[in-house]
Amino acid sequence: MRYVYSFSEGNKDMREILGGKGANLAEMTSLNLPVPSGFTITTEACRKYYLENKTIDKDILYQIGEKLLELEEKTGKKLGDINNPLLVSVRSGARVSMPGMMDTILNLGMNDKVCEGLIIKTNNSRFVYDSYRRLIQMFSDVVMNLPKESFEGLFDKIKLEKNIKNDTDLTSSDLLEIINKYKEEYRRLTNTEFPQDPKVQLLEAIKAVFRSWNTDRARTYRKLNGIDDNWGTAVNIQMMVYGNMGEDSGTGVCFSRNPATGEKNLYGEYLINAQGEDVVAGIRTPKPISTLNEIMPDCYQEFKNICEILENHYKDMQDMEFTIENGKLYILQTRNGKRTPQAAVKIAVDLVKEGKIDKDEALLRVDANTIDQLLHPVFDEGDLKNAKLIAKGLAASPGSAYGKICFSKEEVQNRYRTGEKDLILVRDETSPEDIEGINLANGILTKRGGMTSHAAVVARGMGKCCISGCNNITIDYINKTLTIDGNIIFNSESYISLDGSTGNVYGGMIKTKDSDITGEFSEFMDWARQRKKLQIRVNADIPRDALLAKKFKAEGIGLCRTEHMFFEEDRIFHFRKMILAPNREKRIEALNQILPYQRSDFEGLFMAMDNLPVIIRLLDPPLHEFLPKSEEEIVILANSLNISNESLKEKISLLKEFNPMMGHRGCRLDITYPEIARMQARAIIEAAINVKNKGISVIPEIMIPLVGSKTEFNFVRNILIDEIEKVEKERNCNLSYKIGTMIEVPRATIKADEIATVAEFFSFGTNDLTQLTYGFSRDDSGKFLNDYYNNKILDFDPFKTIDTEGVGKLIDLASKLSRKTRKNIELGICGEHGGDPKSIEFCNKINLNYVSCSPYRILTATLAAAQAVIKEKGNK
Amino acid sequence: MRYVYSFSEGNKDMREILGGKGANLAEMTSLNLPVPSGFTITTEACRKYYLENKTIDKDILYQIGEKLLELEEKTGKKLGDINNPLLVSVRSGARVSMPGMMDTILNLGMNDKVCEGLIIKTNNSRFVYDSYRRLIQMFSDVVMNLPKESFEGLFDKIKLEKNIKNDTDLTSSDLLEIINKYKEEYRRLTNTEFPQDPKVQLLEAIKAVFRSWNTDRARTYRKLNGIDDNWGTAVNIQMMVYGNMGEDSGTGVCFSRNPATGEKNLYGEYLINAQGEDVVAGIRTPKPISTLNEIMPDCYQEFKNICEILENHYKDMQDMEFTIENGKLYILQTRNGKRTPQAAVKIAVDLVKEGKIDKDEALLRVDANTIDQLLHPVFDEGDLKNAKLIAKGLAASPGSAYGKICFSKEEVQNRYRTGEKDLILVRDETSPEDIEGINLANGILTKRGGMTSHAAVVARGMGKCCISGCNNITIDYINKTLTIDGNIIFNSESYISLDGSTGNVYGGMIKTKDSDITGEFSEFMDWARQRKKLQIRVNADIPRDALLAKKFKAEGIGLCRTEHMFFEEDRIFHFRKMILAPNREKRIEALNQILPYQRSDFEGLFMAMDNLPVIIRLLDPPLHEFLPKSEEEIVILANSLNISNESLKEKISLLKEFNPMMGHRGCRLDITYPEIARMQARAIIEAAINVKNKGISVIPEIMIPLVGSKTEFNFVRNILIDEIEKVEKERNCNLSYKIGTMIEVPRATIKADEIATVAEFFSFGTNDLTQLTYGFSRDDSGKFLNDYYNNKILDFDPFKTIDTEGVGKLIDLASKLSRKTRKNIELGICGEHGGDPKSIEFCNKINLNYVSCSPYRILTATLAAAQAVIKEKGNK
Repeated sequence: MRYVYSFSEGNKDMREILGGKGANLAEMTSLNLPVPSGFTITTEACRKYYLENKTIDKDILYQIGEKLLELEEKTGKKLGDINNPLLVSVRSGARVSMPGMMDTILNLGMNDKVCEGLIIKTNNSRFVYDSYRRLIQMFSDVVMNLPKESFEGLFDKIKLEKNIKNDTDLTSSDLLEIINKYKEEYRRLTNTEFPQDPKVQLLEAIKAVFRSWNTDRARTYRKLNGIDDNWGTAVNIQMMVYGNMGEDSGTGVCFSRNPATGEKNLYGEYLINAQGEDVVAGIRTPKPISTLNEIMPDCYQEFKNICEILENHYKDMQDMEFTIENGKLYILQTRNGKRTPQAAVKIAVDLVKEGKIDKDEALLRVDANTIDQLLHPVFDEGDLKNAKLIAKGLAASPGSAYGKICFSKEEVQNRYRTGEKDLILVRDETSPEDIEGINLANGILTKRGGMTSHAAVVARGMGKCCISGCNNITIDYINKTLTIDGNIIFNSESYISLDGSTGNVYGGMIKTKDSDITGEFSEFMDWARQRKKLQIRVNADIPRDALLAKKFKAEGIGLCRTEHMFFEEDRIFHFRKMILAPNREKRIEALNQILPYQRSDFEGLFMAMDNLPVIIRLLDPPLHEFLPKSEEEIVILANSLNISNESLKEKISLLKEFNPMMGHRGCRLDITYPEIARMQARAIIEAAINVKNKGISVIPEIMIPLVGSKTEFNFVRNILIDEIEKVEKERNCNLSYKIGTMIEVPRATIKADEIATVAEFFSFGTNDLTQLTYGFSRDDSGKFLNDYYNNKILDFDPFKTIDTEGVGKLIDLASKLSRKTRKNIELGICGEHGGDPKSIEFCNKINLNYVSCSPYRILTATLAAAQAVIKEKGNK
Repeated sequence: MRYVYSFSEGNKDMREILGGKGANLAEMTSLNLPVPSGFTITTEACRKYYLENKTIDKDILYQIGEKLLELEEKTGKKLGDINNPLLVSVRSGARVSMPGMMDTILNLGMNDKVCEGLIIKTNNSRFVYDSYRRLIQMFSDVVMNLPKESFEGLFDKIKLEKNIKNDTDLTSSDLLEIINKYKEEYRRLTNTEFPQDPKVQLLEAIKAVFRSWNTDRARTYRKLNGIDDNWGTAVNIQMMVYGNMGEDSGTGVCFSRNPATGEKNLYGEYLINAQGEDVVAGIRTPKPISTLNEIMPDCYQEFKNICEILENHYKDMQDMEFTIENGKLYILQTRNGKRTPQAAVKIAVDLVKEGKIDKDEALLRVDANTIDQLLHPVFDEGDLKNAKLIAKGLAASPGSAYGKICFSKEEVQNRYRTGEKDLILVRDETSPEDIEGINLANGILTKRGGMTSHAAVVARGMGKCCISGCNNITIDYINKTLTIDGNIIFNSESYISLDGSTGNVYGGMIKTKDSDITGEFSEFMDWARQRKKLQIRVNADIPRDALLAKKFKAEGIGLCRTEHMFFEEDRIFHFRKMILAPNREKRIEALNQILPYQRSDFEGLFMAMDNLPVIIRLLDPPLHEFLPKSEEEIVILANSLNISNESLKEKISLLKEFNPMMGHRGCRLDITYPEIARMQARAIIEAAINVKNKGISVIPEIMIPLVGSKTEFNFVRNILIDEIEKVEKERNCNLSYKIGTMIEVPRATIKADEIATVAEFFSFGTNDLTQLTYGFSRDDSGKFLNDYYNNKILDFDPFKTIDTEGVGKLIDLASKLSRKTRKNIELGICGEHGGDPKSIEFCNKINLNYVSCSPYRILTATLAAAQAVIKEKGNK
């Protein structure tokens, strides 16, 4: 088995074993681009490392040795050779990029002797000592897990002693002093000397990279991003080139297009006389890439050409790292660049227009899960006019956000947990440890760091608003204050507002509102709509949601939950009266009070959805959910019902259930109280007739919930038809309507063929079907599902993504059975899963007719439905 | 379509359309037995009557007319002919007997004119008037639904005026006076005259019988007895013969064998000068059949011969009605007699020995559901010695019972509902309205009525202890007292005890104990065991139940619920401590306290089941079920845990669940707290080793509950194996054991093939599987399931009998899937259904290996398993 590949032996399709970075280094090598030589240890070697109790197999060691020899031959340098030493970088590289998550060690091969030789060779002792101190610092941190602060403290102390501000101002003797202090500290902390043998350094570094795959922060990142824990990371060993060789050297990162907006301009930044990590770490604020043209026009032109070559080759926007060593350009990495959803859409559409990819490919380029972020709020224009601009930083990740200030990720987490949802994380700079805080905050503001700093990259990945490099702010972590230009002071209770698209920071709260769908976005969604097969409907209970959904081109209402209407203040009293009625007459009396409200609710929905189907589900939850719970409310209700508190309490306790999810609810209510079904049928049909009389086309579909057998369905259906016929007769008007059912108890899936003989449509209620198929109560499973994830018993949340192997099998079975007895039955899903791309792909595969989701998920569902078709046809 | 058949045209195999009575009348006619001529209107005519809005179809009317003509020709009499009138009875007759449930009208064809003619013809005005007044009375009740009391009141009033005790002492002029009063009352209540046209009488009577199919009491009876509401009743029109023609006339009912014990002796009773309903109604206490030999030896001999003929013909014990008219014997009905389970077994075994039927037939002759009644308690001999005999009645239905006295069915129902379970219903006589009271009471005591009175028949049918005709008791319904011989007084709070096998009534409570399995019963069960394929196991948590089950020849423990053990007083404290432990160490500490108890529990079970398999289920219920609920208990627990009441209450409330049935329970507990699984595994294996060391063979099977996926199962299985291997190492002993799972969440049935790759056995937990497949919470479904039955949405209780079409399909699917990946997997069920004959038939059909049920259902399960094999082979 082969575990190590030279860059010249791989290609971009080998990312599973070489990792993304390794595969692209290999690809660029074969494109003859200026890539420093090197080799890649595969992800399989990483897996083997874990399988064999964190040791590197002999065979792998042997293969590393072979490739190292090859590298030494190719470069003419030798690891540890005093006269002509090979120095290498050791970098992680997983199948998919996990920015900042895993470890890197640079300048490996340096030791006391090599140092001396290299000074002779380069005649640049400052550079040599700087490289050596960096190696000791990184090795101590990454390999030995020694506290970062120890070494940073020593470094800062010397800077202070020498009264030096910038690292670059340190002299070579300052640096030698630092090296000696570092070695002393290393000895103190480990009781051993810093290893002088470059091969020991290399081996330990490789192991450290393997180990970095499994740090807490890496695992958290993978969980958030759905990355498999078993993939492992590759390790890239590459000849060092130096951006810190002087003023004719430098290093930078660059996107071939703007990752925030998608505009076609080089977008990047660099630092002169620096090593790569200085740019990403955000310690010095780098310069925009365009200024490189002024300093080193040849390098800039060469880089521009390489960008063009790479974009044409990869047919996608590239995210590159480069280093200039004594005026010579090297490309250290390229990969498809992360981008905001906005940029993803614009780039995809532009690439089609440039003839580089076709529409199908473009549709696959955008993560359907993120597309709803394009609808993320923008500032309300009125509020904005009156807002006070207090600072300006880099527009690192677009979107608008407001919130109270938090000064640490812990503060975000704590305040979020206690119910404060609008929070802004404000930091000098962020680090991978801050991920959860970034995730929970509305937006991020950092003092330092550029467009590619940690905060910027992560925020863009999450589609979260971010402003970085906002130099005129001062943060006092101890007293928790944010000071602008030294005079305006904000604290934890102050609101600020961020515009990530301009970099503007405002004092106070600026309200936000939804974005519009225009330009490339609109075009892109049109392509998706043309491609998809599934109909996309909306779960909407009120006209406002229905109208919103129509803006997103929803093709009907897939689920209107009538119970939500009963909770409104003006009707809950009548509804409670109905529930507590001592007999049928009193119950009907109360229902008659509710009828006008229901009718007008439905009129609103029908008007909004003009000519599109509207599925209305009959009352579903158990009645006790509608009764008051607090003592105070009980007293009020008892008074208005003119009964004693005790008697009301007794009635309430009689209605209580042990397992309400499986209790007296759904069609079971209509079986016990047919008058409820009658009232609802009447409200629906009267509303439909009223709206029809206004010349608006109406397609009501009445849905009977929680059906498990044909007899159950028929019983309720007969009540409905009887009442509908009465209304039609009274109003002298015929109406076409459908009566169907929600398939949510497992039995219904098995009896689907029988039920379909009488039901005209099925809507799979995947929330309840998942609860019953697993026997997981959604309200209670929080108590144990984390243990399931941690122990890898479940690798997805079945309430978010359809369990295709279990619940999905039942849905597929029911679909097939139902089509046997009713060829044209309308089939769809209306649970949370209706807005989940993976679930939508499944629905497309088993040929459902529609999915229904919440208004803000309609674009996601539309795109996912298109992607499902494209993937299925293998057109990719 | 043919709706009417002469008796000479039918046979016993036509009971579906002719009803049981009609088919047997036809059969007896073809055997040339002395059956009065007549014809039968089919059950299909009844169904048509309901379908056509309660009218009799023209075609059917025509067919009735034709058959009436035929009957008139055959008998030489004519309906309404003054000189030679045909008088007929109109009787119901369903496919299966529903004793006393439906209506009968006798003496039909009588009117003022016919009366006069018949007096001339018979020269017996007393008989004629008596017949006429009976017609008016029955017609008013059955056809016109007039209040019974009106007519009975008039009758009693005249008896009082004339100072007459027995009906037979009324003179013909008394009877004429009654007729006139009756006609007047009829006029007053209906505003019409009593119909003089015999054809009108006939038609109305037929309709009334049809209607009687659908009375409340008939529907209740059918529900209790699992009879289809759609079958309908046939109507038998038969020439009247008269047992009330004088002292050479009489009427009676008789069984060919003793229906209480099964002994081969004629067993019946009769009344001289009476009509049939007088015997059944229990108004006069009839004489034993043997005394007929003294009064009318010829009739008696002829009757004995006919019994012999009928038994040989039907190959079963017969229940016959006969009438003697002026010394001539007529047989009015025969049917297979209802009998106690004791009698059923004895008769079946005797018939095999007599060569009349084979063993398979014998096994089918006993209702498996009733066989456990043979184990019904008998009085404890010690208690019985000291008991005070207070009265003696007829031994109407065997068994022993004690309880407090209830004087009405309502009282039984109310007291039963409030938790009093030991009740005796005491009545002058019972009527069909009392069925539910009889059902709930431990036993029945009546003052009037014979061995075939309503109380006796119904109680025998239910296998319930009953003493009838206990003349020396006096019941005061108003003051609720029972007085014996006028001096000993009992009230509602007094206990009495009944021995239904001797007719002895005792004062006070005599404790009861189980019966033994001996004689024919033992022989019969041996035949069943030889025939069955399914293994019968027991659900037993404690050695006492296990030993009881072994007495009934259980073949292993199918389910030991370990949680039951934790509720015992000496361990609940440790268990609660475990639940409330703040961390893992404290939890393990508490579990270590429980370990010795668990181990000794299992030792007891293993010892009891020597060499038979024992399935032990790991802890299943959610932990909060074990915590105290009352304030008082909470205080005590908080004290012993040395924490504050508030903090305990908070912990308890944190553990509460919305839907505990689908909550943190089953294997989910072991996933969160692996230490629980470890403790239980250790207890099982240590117990097994200890018992094995005593030379007793042990086969432990460890069952992981509530599994829904292979990963879930594997996680727990690995914990178990790890702990088991530890114990084996510590004890230096290897043990063979199995690890399997309970299939109770629907997902498990779909994933059975995968799960079976690692699970060695499946036990279908049909209780939970039914809950989840239907989405019916068993604890809550009482609120709506009655509406399901009443509306015919469900025609069985899915928690009692497996829903073969839904839940059963999943079980079948899982069985097939699992056998694909593990050919010899052990499959069984262990829910309530394991003791239900219909469910057992299903289990046999899909080739499960075993069923497991509660100890007292083992014989039922054994017999049902044998019957399933016989039915399947079509050997019947």
